[in-house]
Amino acid sequence: MRINDPVLLAEVTHAFHAYETALMADDIAAMDALFHDAPTTNRYGVGEVLYGIEEIRAFRKGRGGSPQRRLGRVAITVYGASFATADAEFFREGSGPEAGGRRGRQTQSWVRFEDGWKVVSAHVSLEGSTS
Amino acid sequence: MRINDPVLLAEVTHAFHAYETALMADDIAAMDALFHDAPTTNRYGVGEVLYGIEEIRAFRKGRGGSPQRRLGRVAITVYGASFATADAEFFREGSGPEAGGRRGRQTQSWVRFEDGWKVVSAHVSLEGSTS
Repeated sequence: MRINDPVLLAEVTHAFHAYETALMADDIAAMDALFHDAPTTNRYGVGEVLYGIEEIRAFRKGRGGSPQRRLGRVAITVYGASFATADAEFFREGSGPEAGGRRGRQTQSWVRFEDGWKVVSAHVSLEGSTS
Repeated sequence: MRINDPVLLAEVTHAFHAYETALMADDIAAMDALFHDAPTTNRYGVGEVLYGIEEIRAFRKGRGGSPQRRLGRVAITVYGASFATADAEFFREGSGPEAGGRRGRQTQSWVRFEDGWKVVSAHVSLEGSTS
């Protein structure tokens, strides 16, 4: 299995940052376009668990936007021709390590469908004090 | 792309539960055998971020075992022939909703290599109070 085909890695990296831009702008349509439209698409957020794209859409509409954040380390890997993982750290404004705040972590699984790369599973959390 | 080929879904489901059994028994060799042996394999735990299988191994050796937990809802989906996601809720002993505790969430990305299904990215967290 080929790991990190450079063309595909560039595609996923672009999609990853497009999602981040959409999230920061609360561009719900752009976020929605980057998540796979299926009942199998799940998202675990800091304070919620969402099963299926309909629950994810309802959450976004009622949320009023994400807290602003800046990305830390980002690790993207492409496995074969149609799957990738994107693991990223983030720090919310005023909550970075310099402010004694907790590190955020976001993982996404991306699948390449006929209409492009889409997130099929996502998990966002703040680092806790126990393992 | 075929979703949830029944043979593959059974394989991933078996591997998912094998990992859970290994985690509860602190069977480090069994856990290690189910994670992809590569520097690209990452694991975000409740209280740590680990990049590469070597950091994951070092953490497991020094951890002294995971807190005991029981699984809640589990959602596994297979995309095509070699990729799957496993999204699961869990409750640590004495910390379930009946005890006012927080829900745990675990997501894993699985890839089928020549030597079987392996986790390439994992994220474990406890549900927080903010989104």
